[in-house]
Amino acid sequence: MNTSMIRYLLGHVLRIEGLLLLLPCIVALIYNEQAGFSYLIVSASAILIGTLITLKRPQSNVFYLKEGCLATALSWITLSIVGAIPFCLTGEIPHFINALFESVSGFTTTGASILSNVEALSHASLIWRSFTNWIGGMGVLVFLLAILPMVGGSNMNLMKAESPGPTVGKLVPKIATTARLLYIIYIGMTFVQIILLLCGDMPLFEAVATSFSTAGTGGFGIKNDSIGGYSPYIQWVVTVFMILFGVNFNAYYLIIFGKIKRALCMEEIRSYFAIIFASAGFITFQLVRSGTMIADALRHSFFQVGTLITSTGFSTTDYDQWTEPSKMVLVLIMFIGACAGSTGGGLKVSRILILIKTIARELSYFIHPRSVRKLKMDGKLIEHEVVRSTNVYFVVFAVLFSCSVFLLSFEGYDFTTNFTAVLATLNNMGPGLAKVGPTCNFDFFTPFSKLVLILDMLIGRLELFPMLILFHPKIWKEATNHKIRQYKIRKEAH
Amino acid sequence: MNTSMIRYLLGHVLRIEGLLLLLPCIVALIYNEQAGFSYLIVSASAILIGTLITLKRPQSNVFYLKEGCLATALSWITLSIVGAIPFCLTGEIPHFINALFESVSGFTTTGASILSNVEALSHASLIWRSFTNWIGGMGVLVFLLAILPMVGGSNMNLMKAESPGPTVGKLVPKIATTARLLYIIYIGMTFVQIILLLCGDMPLFEAVATSFSTAGTGGFGIKNDSIGGYSPYIQWVVTVFMILFGVNFNAYYLIIFGKIKRALCMEEIRSYFAIIFASAGFITFQLVRSGTMIADALRHSFFQVGTLITSTGFSTTDYDQWTEPSKMVLVLIMFIGACAGSTGGGLKVSRILILIKTIARELSYFIHPRSVRKLKMDGKLIEHEVVRSTNVYFVVFAVLFSCSVFLLSFEGYDFTTNFTAVLATLNNMGPGLAKVGPTCNFDFFTPFSKLVLILDMLIGRLELFPMLILFHPKIWKEATNHKIRQYKIRKEAH
Repeated sequence: MNTSMIRYLLGHVLRIEGLLLLLPCIVALIYNEQAGFSYLIVSASAILIGTLITLKRPQSNVFYLKEGCLATALSWITLSIVGAIPFCLTGEIPHFINALFESVSGFTTTGASILSNVEALSHASLIWRSFTNWIGGMGVLVFLLAILPMVGGSNMNLMKAESPGPTVGKLVPKIATTARLLYIIYIGMTFVQIILLLCGDMPLFEAVATSFSTAGTGGFGIKNDSIGGYSPYIQWVVTVFMILFGVNFNAYYLIIFGKIKRALCMEEIRSYFAIIFASAGFITFQLVRSGTMIADALRHSFFQVGTLITSTGFSTTDYDQWTEPSKMVLVLIMFIGACAGSTGGGLKVSRILILIKTIARELSYFIHPRSVRKLKMDGKLIEHEVVRSTNVYFVVFAVLFSCSVFLLSFEGYDFTTNFTAVLATLNNMGPGLAKVGPTCNFDFFTPFSKLVLILDMLIGRLELFPMLILFHPKIWKEATNHKIRQYKIRKEAH
Repeated sequence: MNTSMIRYLLGHVLRIEGLLLLLPCIVALIYNEQAGFSYLIVSASAILIGTLITLKRPQSNVFYLKEGCLATALSWITLSIVGAIPFCLTGEIPHFINALFESVSGFTTTGASILSNVEALSHASLIWRSFTNWIGGMGVLVFLLAILPMVGGSNMNLMKAESPGPTVGKLVPKIATTARLLYIIYIGMTFVQIILLLCGDMPLFEAVATSFSTAGTGGFGIKNDSIGGYSPYIQWVVTVFMILFGVNFNAYYLIIFGKIKRALCMEEIRSYFAIIFASAGFITFQLVRSGTMIADALRHSFFQVGTLITSTGFSTTDYDQWTEPSKMVLVLIMFIGACAGSTGGGLKVSRILILIKTIARELSYFIHPRSVRKLKMDGKLIEHEVVRSTNVYFVVFAVLFSCSVFLLSFEGYDFTTNFTAVLATLNNMGPGLAKVGPTCNFDFFTPFSKLVLILDMLIGRLELFPMLILFHPKIWKEATNHKIRQYKIRKEAH
């Protein structure tokens, strides 16, 4: 186990977070807010500690998948804990568990909140909340890969652990270039959204914060009614960008390099848009039938479908009041989630496609038991490993889901609340139904339940396995053995 | 496609059902009930039509898995439709959809009912309801295999399609002997239960009907309060037998032949009992804490756990009033279900074991990507096919589950009702929670929803694939092609 490399990476993560924390400091300076001091203290400490840790370079560059997973899981935990401290220091979220909930919810792009009145927050804290959404959306380790050429040849394992989806598509042969390209597309699109929001007469601060939350498909709003109070134009801009940020970024890469047709032919992209249009169409129909104007019905249904399939979690209306079939469609698309390789959450459209393909194959085995059928996606063979892993992924998801709902049930709330609270956190969605509906928040849960939900958010963002590995006894045994071996080597050397 | 063989089997199924329908006729005779005539008419017609169909023997004995599935699916549909007719004829359940619901619920051993007052039924109808539970428990095609030595060498495919569990264990090399042994154990155990119930001063009719429903883990009661009104002794007898009928029958075979130790070492059996004791223990603790006497708490919790894990569906108390964690435990064990190769429903303990083993393997792939780990059960290797099929089974289950809940949501009832109504039917359970709780019935659903639930019950009993194959276009294309080919051959011969 290459523990020195993990330490080194964690140090870099701390340093980067320290630097990122300067943004709320600047905002505080502009708005002349006291909260800026808290952010400055945390920023300075993080940079200092991070630099100290990274002073000693690791002895070895060898880095396997297990180290990738471990480094990713620990990075995200570090990121969340440090990100929560300023909320406590400013006194805006006094209890640490609540602050941690907010921070984890931000970085994992969940967007669930324990705050009932976000408008009471300082500008510094508001921009930090939205910024955590943005940072978490593309992933901090991908950022590390983009700027640090140090990790050597095995850095694919970091990418694998942090990027969403059943497979990781390298855009170009070099990981560092891939990571850089991803961030360029990400920043570019965020920038375009800010401009378009400014065109709709949104103040700069709000446009930046909203775009951050949209880009990360996080969903932290800066208003108590989320996006509900803004003009239809702004709501449509947010809708379109939520959906665009839920698209597999490979498609944008293809489009940039002129391969538009190939991008549009991607099975995942087609299915993703098909699901969006079918669901939004269905809900529009239901809304119009119950008397809503067609323009409003279209806007609300596309907004809600966009926000839930991409797991953003913004809201413009209380969909908990919609008809039961509409709500069921929303729950189903919450499960499905966005495309792999996007900033969105959920099971991912490509996983669903693989699962459906395996079902079709299984049925055909019943008809022709000896037939050999390979599964294909976009005309390419899906590796056996990916199929197996996808199936197991789904099972693990169901097991974690059940355990979490069980643990939450001790609170005594109704089944719908528990079920959708877990769905909203494990899929990094944000709001659920009933007591955790779009007009409510998560503050009423006990600290224990909040910890369960915090864990669910982290597990969901890192796609189960990297986080679960932390609980595997073998990993700790190996790490300890390694320490003991190193100690012996050092002793013998003396 | 060997359609003549399928026709031949269906004829036999009809004949057997005709003979089985003589039991309610006899009961009607004893109690001097008019309902007997209706049963006699249906019985006579079924025997007549069945005999006519079986007059012409099939040309070929060759019988593949697809024919096995198709024959099984069509047999169960025939069985259900014919079994529903007497309910209509007697006028006790006037609407055919309702009668079909009751009949399907009986044969699939679900035990969900649309009746609010079962005590108003004639003795003939009561015994027929319980008898359908008993017939469906072990399966009518297994019975056919036990008595008809005609199907030739490929009759394993019939057994595969009808028997629950990821694999079919042949007790002895010959299928017919296996089927006979299974029925001997089944009848023997039913008989012992009747005797034990009689010892508790239960009237003969009630003892027989209750034992039928217990043996099939069906759960059709003959009282409005199910088993709630009987003495604690009787409740305990029913509890023990429900749990025993949920055990893999292979274990009884081993016990009969003196291999008790091997039976007790079966991983599935151990896990099954571990789950039962853990769940019942947890619920007892919760009940005692809320003030229930320990004896009552033990009885109620073991009864409810036994009835729900084996998918029987009897009830002694309204568990919808229990605490949220207790209800969640019940929902979880509803999903798990009984052992493979038993009369119980659900996902089956052995499937859950395989799923958990695949999760453990997947995690270890992350730690040692190149390790080769084979999955084992009871020290034996689990075939790759079984693992794949189990994973896909789970995915199909989830997809069907979601679709059904969506279709039910059009009724406008709450999420818990829809969710547990589907759970109760797809797992052949019976009662759910909220509007379909243990004190309620399914009558309030529209005919469309009832059809969805009827399909769920059939799909659940035949373990998804045999029923789903009916909807596969290829099957019908092959059947039609076969007909056309036969027609051409006949034309050329003339």
